[in-house]
Amino acid sequence: MSRLADTLKSRRQKLSKLIDFSIVLESGNLKSRNFPANTYPFRASSHFLYFAGLSLPNAAIRIEGDRLTLFLDDPHPTSALWHGDSPSRDQIALEIGADAAYPLSEMSHFSSESIDHPAFVDAIIKLRLTHDESAIAEIRKAIAVTVEAHRIGMQATSNAQTEAQIRAAMESVILSHNMTCAYNSIVTVHGEVLHNEQYHHAIGQLDLVLADVGAETQSGWASDITRTWAASGKFSPTQRAIYEVVLEAHDRAIAKIRPGVEYLDIHLLACETLAEGLIDLGILRGNAADLVDRDAHALFFPHGIGHLLGLDVHDMEDLGDLAGYEKGRSRSSRFGLGYLRLDRPLQAGMVVTIEPGFYQVPALLSDLERREKYREVVNWDRLADFADVRGIRIEDDVLVTAEGSEVLSIALPTDPEQIESIVGEGS
Amino acid sequence: MSRLADTLKSRRQKLSKLIDFSIVLESGNLKSRNFPANTYPFRASSHFLYFAGLSLPNAAIRIEGDRLTLFLDDPHPTSALWHGDSPSRDQIALEIGADAAYPLSEMSHFSSESIDHPAFVDAIIKLRLTHDESAIAEIRKAIAVTVEAHRIGMQATSNAQTEAQIRAAMESVILSHNMTCAYNSIVTVHGEVLHNEQYHHAIGQLDLVLADVGAETQSGWASDITRTWAASGKFSPTQRAIYEVVLEAHDRAIAKIRPGVEYLDIHLLACETLAEGLIDLGILRGNAADLVDRDAHALFFPHGIGHLLGLDVHDMEDLGDLAGYEKGRSRSSRFGLGYLRLDRPLQAGMVVTIEPGFYQVPALLSDLERREKYREVVNWDRLADFADVRGIRIEDDVLVTAEGSEVLSIALPTDPEQIESIVGEGS
Repeated sequence: MSRLADTLKSRRQKLSKLIDFSIVLESGNLKSRNFPANTYPFRASSHFLYFAGLSLPNAAIRIEGDRLTLFLDDPHPTSALWHGDSPSRDQIALEIGADAAYPLSEMSHFSSESIDHPAFVDAIIKLRLTHDESAIAEIRKAIAVTVEAHRIGMQATSNAQTEAQIRAAMESVILSHNMTCAYNSIVTVHGEVLHNEQYHHAIGQLDLVLADVGAETQSGWASDITRTWAASGKFSPTQRAIYEVVLEAHDRAIAKIRPGVEYLDIHLLACETLAEGLIDLGILRGNAADLVDRDAHALFFPHGIGHLLGLDVHDMEDLGDLAGYEKGRSRSSRFGLGYLRLDRPLQAGMVVTIEPGFYQVPALLSDLERREKYREVVNWDRLADFADVRGIRIEDDVLVTAEGSEVLSIALPTDPEQIESIVGEGS
Repeated sequence: MSRLADTLKSRRQKLSKLIDFSIVLESGNLKSRNFPANTYPFRASSHFLYFAGLSLPNAAIRIEGDRLTLFLDDPHPTSALWHGDSPSRDQIALEIGADAAYPLSEMSHFSSESIDHPAFVDAIIKLRLTHDESAIAEIRKAIAVTVEAHRIGMQATSNAQTEAQIRAAMESVILSHNMTCAYNSIVTVHGEVLHNEQYHHAIGQLDLVLADVGAETQSGWASDITRTWAASGKFSPTQRAIYEVVLEAHDRAIAKIRPGVEYLDIHLLACETLAEGLIDLGILRGNAADLVDRDAHALFFPHGIGHLLGLDVHDMEDLGDLAGYEKGRSRSSRFGLGYLRLDRPLQAGMVVTIEPGFYQVPALLSDLERREKYREVVNWDRLADFADVRGIRIEDDVLVTAEGSEVLSIALPTDPEQIESIVGEGS
């Protein structure tokens, strides 16, 4: 039996201890871009990938106990002309360790529950929350390529006129390893726009470049890393000061990771650390814990400290908050907590991101109601000194281990001087 | 009025001479990749883009005479946090020269025909078959970037171990200009697989590299260029011989382009030229015209000589063959003609591709019935001498002009020695 088949069988065996019915998972179809033959690159459903291992368009699998059945049509006879020799249904069945294989039309003869069955949702969340060795090996592969992409992006900066040129250098590394992007890259001098997918801005010498880019392996496992560097190669004193505040939040959050710890507490620790740092810089006034209670930190750090990482960059977000939130919990309506994507006690085998940031979002900071609410706790004059810090984020991918944690993306430095040194290699 | 608004107004005025009813065109929605928030890069419907100019997700326009109405929701208030300041509906309306603008929900209050109306389909085909100056300027921009991508791809070959690395170098050029790929790139040492979207093969020193890669501008205009080069930098004598046969077909086909000429005749001329060349090389036996009548050329050139190019790489293929085929014509069932995508007399303002090729497709050449049918006309022993020529294609984008034609992609050489020289620059 192949290693892949082995892995998939062990996943079925774990599943069979959680449910006592059979299920069918479909991979999905190719999606048209502008006309039927011009499709987006295919990406199978993550639940399918978890149990089928291969990104096969228009396929389905049925799991009954530890038994696997593949439903897939053999390639059309003319397919060989346009798409070359494709493996047959039987060859694929062998590769993934399927016990039986049929054309798609046969699927209707088998009764099974689908992904919508609540007990199956519970079971798949339980399984996918923590990763087996094979999954972790894939995530490590994705991360290794992403680390290289970030280094190349930093080095490309001194010769880049636009964000698009840095993005191109980074994604080119991912493509050259025959991987894809796990999500649309953010590569911008406007890091304060959290999900910025524009790349047309010119790179100014005084700008920070924020790059949130992650590779995905051929079998769909994701990585997700963010670094922020100075376009000139050297952080200004104000940029460096805020960078170090964000880095302190990042480091303390990671240091707290171990099984049993509530992810929410890690979020709150990061928020408090940011608040402390901003107090020290004279931007915030008061006591850090009080400021976090009042959501004052969220003026500058409005999102959550991170999320689950796996086959999806926000793992299992297709299920809403069912995976991210422990049963019985739900999103807070608080400004400083509402964007948190994960609220569970950590378990060994989880992979989470840790991604604190500091942003000056005009829509938040110029909002009159908010300015009034936080009038006393923000030193707006002092804040104006930090105008060259529009957005900083530092994000790593962390495996929860029995002993504590392992930063899977450790090969990419976070230390500001080391970052400066890599950027400098390009000039 | 902006230049864009001017262009769009002139397109509406032309449309208003062809239809006497109002129509609504929708742009389409973002398409999810693996979970709702993780979408493919948005690409608006080409018919929408033709009249709206901007790639706006979840928008619609209504055209009534030369009057333009935009339907678009203003960004959600929280959107500024995640996506930054977006232009308002009114700002966009101004940019595209809309006479009125409403939220999407208002659309139901206007009665209009949709893209399905047969008279509108006829009208839009008539309009989009030939390109205005603004469209041609966009296509030229896309081509300029694609030409650069091919040069970089050739130069990257000597240091590339895999197809993926050459692809990465080429697409990186497209990304660095903040453009996208008009279609999934083909970059392969297995050019005989016509739509090969795999990039994992190693580059062998004796291999040919076939790259079919095209950029698309931000407003959706496409380019489509193919070149084939020797991985070593130097074609083998057999590769060079076949390359010159394909190039001769390419050159003669282009030389024949002028208004009024049937595209089918250009296809047949290319087929005959290929047959002649293969006769001269001793691969085929007999008379070129007879061989083409018997579809013998299609053993090695099974696809059509090209297609319309515009907002879609196969322009208007969302309408099936309605745009590609003149009214009353339909696809031939003949093996040598059935894959032809365009069968119309050429008109000034059309942009077409010319892309002859030579392929040794195992599925065709090892088919016993076909081998029997062409037993006498193929010298199989002689063919075996050309085993190092799996696939060659040479593709350019050509504007039909009043005087004849202009090869828009002329900046990228087709001459084998010039190609060798560019590949050599990388080593």
